[in-house]
Amino acid sequence: MENSTNHSVSIPATFAVIGGGVIGGGWVARFLVMGCNVKVYDPDPQAERKINQILSNARRSLPGLYEYVLPKEGKLHICSSIEEAVSDAQWIGESVPERLDVKHQIFREIQRHCKDDAIIASSTSGFKPSQLQQGSCNPKQIIVAHPFNPVYLIPLVELVGDRQTTAVAAKILSQLGMHPLTLRKEIDAHIADRLLEAVWREGLWLINDGIATTAEIDDVIRYGFGLRWAQMGMFETYRIAGGEAGMKHFIEQFGPALKWPWTKLMDVPELSDELISTIADQSDEQSGQHSINDLEQIRDDNLVAMMRALKLKDWAAGDLLNRVDHRLEASAVLASQPPYQRNNVQTIHRVIPSSWLDFNGHMNDSHYAEVFSKASDIILRRLGADPDYVARGYSYFTVDMKIDYIDECHAGDEVKVFTSIKLADGKKLDLYHELKDTAGNLRAAASQFLLHVDLKSRKSCAPVEPLATHLNRLKD
Amino acid sequence: MENSTNHSVSIPATFAVIGGGVIGGGWVARFLVMGCNVKVYDPDPQAERKINQILSNARRSLPGLYEYVLPKEGKLHICSSIEEAVSDAQWIGESVPERLDVKHQIFREIQRHCKDDAIIASSTSGFKPSQLQQGSCNPKQIIVAHPFNPVYLIPLVELVGDRQTTAVAAKILSQLGMHPLTLRKEIDAHIADRLLEAVWREGLWLINDGIATTAEIDDVIRYGFGLRWAQMGMFETYRIAGGEAGMKHFIEQFGPALKWPWTKLMDVPELSDELISTIADQSDEQSGQHSINDLEQIRDDNLVAMMRALKLKDWAAGDLLNRVDHRLEASAVLASQPPYQRNNVQTIHRVIPSSWLDFNGHMNDSHYAEVFSKASDIILRRLGADPDYVARGYSYFTVDMKIDYIDECHAGDEVKVFTSIKLADGKKLDLYHELKDTAGNLRAAASQFLLHVDLKSRKSCAPVEPLATHLNRLKD
Repeated sequence: MENSTNHSVSIPATFAVIGGGVIGGGWVARFLVMGCNVKVYDPDPQAERKINQILSNARRSLPGLYEYVLPKEGKLHICSSIEEAVSDAQWIGESVPERLDVKHQIFREIQRHCKDDAIIASSTSGFKPSQLQQGSCNPKQIIVAHPFNPVYLIPLVELVGDRQTTAVAAKILSQLGMHPLTLRKEIDAHIADRLLEAVWREGLWLINDGIATTAEIDDVIRYGFGLRWAQMGMFETYRIAGGEAGMKHFIEQFGPALKWPWTKLMDVPELSDELISTIADQSDEQSGQHSINDLEQIRDDNLVAMMRALKLKDWAAGDLLNRVDHRLEASAVLASQPPYQRNNVQTIHRVIPSSWLDFNGHMNDSHYAEVFSKASDIILRRLGADPDYVARGYSYFTVDMKIDYIDECHAGDEVKVFTSIKLADGKKLDLYHELKDTAGNLRAAASQFLLHVDLKSRKSCAPVEPLATHLNRLKD
Repeated sequence: MENSTNHSVSIPATFAVIGGGVIGGGWVARFLVMGCNVKVYDPDPQAERKINQILSNARRSLPGLYEYVLPKEGKLHICSSIEEAVSDAQWIGESVPERLDVKHQIFREIQRHCKDDAIIASSTSGFKPSQLQQGSCNPKQIIVAHPFNPVYLIPLVELVGDRQTTAVAAKILSQLGMHPLTLRKEIDAHIADRLLEAVWREGLWLINDGIATTAEIDDVIRYGFGLRWAQMGMFETYRIAGGEAGMKHFIEQFGPALKWPWTKLMDVPELSDELISTIADQSDEQSGQHSINDLEQIRDDNLVAMMRALKLKDWAAGDLLNRVDHRLEASAVLASQPPYQRNNVQTIHRVIPSSWLDFNGHMNDSHYAEVFSKASDIILRRLGADPDYVARGYSYFTVDMKIDYIDECHAGDEVKVFTSIKLADGKKLDLYHELKDTAGNLRAAASQFLLHVDLKSRKSCAPVEPLATHLNRLKD
């Protein structure tokens, strides 16, 4: 991805990250797994251990989001000073504690050593760029790039600051599979944390008043509106609820409720020792049976499975994943293979996602069929039966498939499929796939026989152009 | 499900629903598709058309959440009076407009005709049971059962009211695949809508102040915290963010932010005509290219795919789905088949989910492998290779599978698989599966050869007890 030339803004060769906690470490993990080199500075002697822990979680989840293998993982360099980390970096992430005086001091040190055109991106949840830039010699290079935990999976980044700097930042983040949202105006806490803070305060009241426990509030969210919000937001959801009468009608109807005493947010609960203990105790009871790392892996596996599910409809986070897939596909080895190669065409190069495992702890037999089915799609597209061709009313249906399972696959395994065209005669197409690991060991093989069909009649028929010509050429 | 005798509270034979709008119609659809009869009263001449539209959406999404076919769909009876709808009903849902005087009038009419021990469950978002019960002759039977749109997919129902009545209601709703959450105390707007209202008000401010559009706020939600909240709520998410230092540390750290000006919720924006128009226009720009029914189907397909994804980890909404599957499995025909039947054992009876379709508009070839793989699991469990057996370190691995694709399957198709044991000799097991539609037409067939393995060595080995004995018996 580093060498991509399809975009006016290329991805920096090296990213610097100052502060390697949950958020800084999350940035480090995303950059590395997406193929970028990272230099980190954090005075905490535990920083390297903590970063490696986050990186290990990222390695087991992020690559499985995509149908193509990501570029080779970047190199991590732990630095002993800010100067060493930032001097040749084009992107400098700041993820130190939320104290303005600390951040000002760090920015001064960064700007003493960094390039004038480097982007200094603060992960701050609350401060505005104008606050961060106070006393800076080069204020425009300091922006907010506020991500969400886990940074290596959640796509959103709020960008705030100078128009030109945020525009460059947005292009870089998009290429890393993220969704940069550039704010029109700076505002305390940006957008997301204003919404989160509102829920958080209301949640604290509910606990304070003995209405609900942490577990009950979480259940209300994950069994209720959380499911809606993972794929449509609040306004699109309400648009649907309004039905045929439209959004205007919905709001007018909802209007009076605004005056009702439905929130306690006019007031802030006192965060007494008692309330803190109540919340901590309830949280222990709710989640204490899982270690933090267990919870992280459960969360990551859930996110991978849900985000992959959204790929089907090309919707929300799934749409973002598909866009990265398209870029990866364009640069995949397939494009460089001779167009009429019949044998050992590399059709798949991917990593096994965690959501493909079964109770035997390995890739379920049905997902081998999924990989081979996808390999056939690639061959078909290459021959001219691409989405446009399908839109014209023609496609191929599988008639039979025989899979030989030779060795197990596990989450995170990098595999390739090589496909040979055994027969391409009129409407008949006979394919042979071999699934291999990176050492070249055969893990599975499959024979697949397909027939060309008319999608209207759902019956087999002769291929049409340009497929027909391409199939004929294969015979030469 | 109606005839289930495994639970102390059985599902009522007939549900009544008063008011057939988006929420009332959603209740009707869930009851019917889960196998219950429903009597509806709604004076709107369009009510039947609107209910059928919702029912049609429910039919294409809800059955695909499960790995077993649901009980036969219930009967819908449109009534011409409240009396007709409620007289023999054990559950009476009220989903009329949010006006207390209207609700009181409806309750009086219901209580004039209903049974004394019927549950009258109001869908109200805001009113407390004590308000609903004002002037009632039998107040304890009136409770709040507040669901979430789409009611046929989103599991959460907030229950408020008399302890005994809500306890019975909770058991009924659980059996319908929902997650009843009984509130400890009554409170305006219950729990979820307090949280939603907080986000809604903050969202209105962001639009009012020109900070963000409806599309931007929705993107912040669906690319950001919405993904987290579909599988863990707010407190469990923050517990992870707090890391090894624990929840108490996290809250203490977060404490000061409560005093910062991060929300505008001390105040309520005026819902002026201008603000209403701004929101309606932004929403049109964001979503206007899709009709409401398109959006409903996209939403439902996304929810089905995401909720099915959560089944893998037995987590959140996925855990609820698995619990219904276990109930359905227990009552499935398999249990009633002779234990040592070798041929034509019915292993699968299910509906094809929308998330299994591909670009050809039919079930993707790989999901046939998924169905057959699942059929083998059923056979294995029946023979004694159940989860306990696997936990002891033994299982079966597939060696090869040959699938013949005979006819297409589409979303919503009800299918069965019949499996024959061709060979059961020591560690070898050879199965033959036939996938048929309800008319008995063969859609696909598969041969699958499996070997018994030791999960520690990952090598084949002889079966151990009780499987070994069961396999021997098969030879008789």
